[in-house]
Amino acid sequence: MKNVKGAICVNCGAEHEANDTTLTCKKCGGILEIVYDYGYIKKQFSRENLAARKDFSMWRYMDLLPVEEGSTIPPLRVGWSPLYKTDRLAEMLGLKTLYIKDDGLNPTSSLKDRASAIAITRAAHAGKDTVACSSTGNAASSLAGGAAAMGLKSFIFVPERAPKAKVTQLLIFGANVISVQGNYEDTFKLSAGAIEKWGWYNRNAAVNPYLSEGKKTVSLEIAEQLDFKVPDYVAISVGDGCTIAGVWKGFKDLFALGFIDRLPKLISVQAEGCCPVNRAIETGSPITWMDENTLADSIAVGAPRNGDKALAAIRESGGITVNVSDDEILGAMTLLGKTCGIFGEPAGVTGTAGLKKAIEKKLVPADAVVVSVVTGNGLKDIVSAQKAAGTPLSVPPDMKELEKAFLSCTL
Amino acid sequence: MKNVKGAICVNCGAEHEANDTTLTCKKCGGILEIVYDYGYIKKQFSRENLAARKDFSMWRYMDLLPVEEGSTIPPLRVGWSPLYKTDRLAEMLGLKTLYIKDDGLNPTSSLKDRASAIAITRAAHAGKDTVACSSTGNAASSLAGGAAAMGLKSFIFVPERAPKAKVTQLLIFGANVISVQGNYEDTFKLSAGAIEKWGWYNRNAAVNPYLSEGKKTVSLEIAEQLDFKVPDYVAISVGDGCTIAGVWKGFKDLFALGFIDRLPKLISVQAEGCCPVNRAIETGSPITWMDENTLADSIAVGAPRNGDKALAAIRESGGITVNVSDDEILGAMTLLGKTCGIFGEPAGVTGTAGLKKAIEKKLVPADAVVVSVVTGNGLKDIVSAQKAAGTPLSVPPDMKELEKAFLSCTL
Repeated sequence: MKNVKGAICVNCGAEHEANDTTLTCKKCGGILEIVYDYGYIKKQFSRENLAARKDFSMWRYMDLLPVEEGSTIPPLRVGWSPLYKTDRLAEMLGLKTLYIKDDGLNPTSSLKDRASAIAITRAAHAGKDTVACSSTGNAASSLAGGAAAMGLKSFIFVPERAPKAKVTQLLIFGANVISVQGNYEDTFKLSAGAIEKWGWYNRNAAVNPYLSEGKKTVSLEIAEQLDFKVPDYVAISVGDGCTIAGVWKGFKDLFALGFIDRLPKLISVQAEGCCPVNRAIETGSPITWMDENTLADSIAVGAPRNGDKALAAIRESGGITVNVSDDEILGAMTLLGKTCGIFGEPAGVTGTAGLKKAIEKKLVPADAVVVSVVTGNGLKDIVSAQKAAGTPLSVPPDMKELEKAFLSCTL
Repeated sequence: MKNVKGAICVNCGAEHEANDTTLTCKKCGGILEIVYDYGYIKKQFSRENLAARKDFSMWRYMDLLPVEEGSTIPPLRVGWSPLYKTDRLAEMLGLKTLYIKDDGLNPTSSLKDRASAIAITRAAHAGKDTVACSSTGNAASSLAGGAAAMGLKSFIFVPERAPKAKVTQLLIFGANVISVQGNYEDTFKLSAGAIEKWGWYNRNAAVNPYLSEGKKTVSLEIAEQLDFKVPDYVAISVGDGCTIAGVWKGFKDLFALGFIDRLPKLISVQAEGCCPVNRAIETGSPITWMDENTLADSIAVGAPRNGDKALAAIRESGGITVNVSDDEILGAMTLLGKTCGIFGEPAGVTGTAGLKKAIEKKLVPADAVVVSVVTGNGLKDIVSAQKAAGTPLSVPPDMKELEKAFLSCTL
């Protein structure tokens, strides 16, 4: 990879080669971050030649992706999700300018498709025929769907509480699904043992530094879709920490290349019932285990494996932390639905729930330009959506009964 | 609308003005079809200027859409869904070249977004503040989501058997949802009465000739994505008949403009338990009522309102009819999932199920170039997907237990 210099340990700073055998730091076991040769990249990648590219997917940013030369790009069209200017919602929240990026419109309906696309590309290039991960759901479905399209086998470890829709999606994609009778931490450990034993390609966000590189394409798109006028804030839900780290990396890449002249502040939003990353920021202490008490299953991560990357991102950006209740999350689901026609899953709308709270607490000024990323489609978790949505009016097929029903309710 | 000449009755041929007050034929009550002024359109619309357009949504084909000058285009990004060349699936089916168009990646996760986008545009331009329809689900969610994004109110009538995911989606979008204790026909009639009484904008496919014009953009895209090399066959599921009529109209438009030099044959696929359109083609008699016995709820339409348009499209194209069982539909769900990483709802994959059967029956030659459209996302109907998908392997968080479980099954 001519565009990649190597990988650096987020924990101890040790330098490594970027390859598929050294996934974590040889010295301290910490997670690695990919380091780019911006000087090399600048020579062939400019705002002008980007504007001329006709590939409207994450692969339009190939110059900034850790992909070996000659790799086969997976078939599913990942990325270039819509960025909507949502004036009615902005006004309702008391904000001047708000954009919503709907990443639920990816092939398997979540932002995780961006990460899995990189993993699948690397796995195939490395000659692996099987990919594996543990996941609360979205990482899994994105890996299973992407692997199926690429002709690879997949083994997926899910905690038993994973929503049925997500597990069903895996099975439809032909994945070998192992439902682990335990929490996310138990699931992760079992997957790690199995991956080592059987030599599968490891897509666990914990130990695979390439994943947040895929996720960063969401920021590359936000910047390009805003014609490189950087927003003041980007609000995003945080679980494992890999996504917010990716969001930050994308903006930093563009800043290093001179595509943008400043960086946004991150709004890190977690569920009150599971907010170890935000708690560490707020208390200035290291991340410690928390219970996983939230219906937003995709961010219910008690022991975030990419916590160090997330903390660095939030701190470097001068960011804000906000924790929201499950009721606030459900409220954000209907709020986005009613004002924007966007249906996000609970973890998907948590960033918007946090933005609403941050504005109410005056942590974000009313004249700020904000982007909130919806990270997953609401159809993935209908049980939660039903809690938010209420029920329809049931009537017999008769006009008089309909009129009577309308009179008796407040439509 | 300078590009539109008027509307013609599909039944008696009577000519009408194209507007929002005359939705059905004044003479015979038949459904209308929009007629374009291709001479006018040709002056400003060419393959060359299309290639230069940067709007990658259905609105890139504005020249061919029945939209009043000065209309506000709805915010949701509809269309330009991916068209995948699926060699592995093609080989498995015994076909040389197969493309799958995944229209489940639209904003509310179905092809119906294309039709609703037109309805919403016309409603807003006509000064209506409320839109309404009856639907088995997808037309409804696309209308509700699109209306929410546009700031319009919606009233949606659904039959009580509509899947919960689809109804929940409506409620999230803030629609006023009326669940009718009856079948689709009862639901349709009640909605017609209510629309007349309260003066809402009517998005019922039965009486709104603009909807199939929106749906035709799927064909405009297929043609452009294939660089105007027309496929030999297009396989699509058929319920009300509006979609297949739209598919045909898109190709006919392009043929009239000289963008393409031939037309594809249509493969009309219905469920065995509800196939009134195909039965009419096969027996050469008019469409008559059938029961609605299929799990593919989106095409369970016993009395298709756009039947005449559908029959004309299938016949004009020299098309094929295929009826498939629910088991064949479920089989197509896992087939598309395992080979392409595409998760379609039952009605969404029915076209592919029919294609498989048509190849087996030697109705489609092995060297044909075929496009199969997946019309809706599988996450919309998890209950059916679960029937197709099976269950995961459940294990305790222990490597030895995992090895034991692997040995006892055929992963």
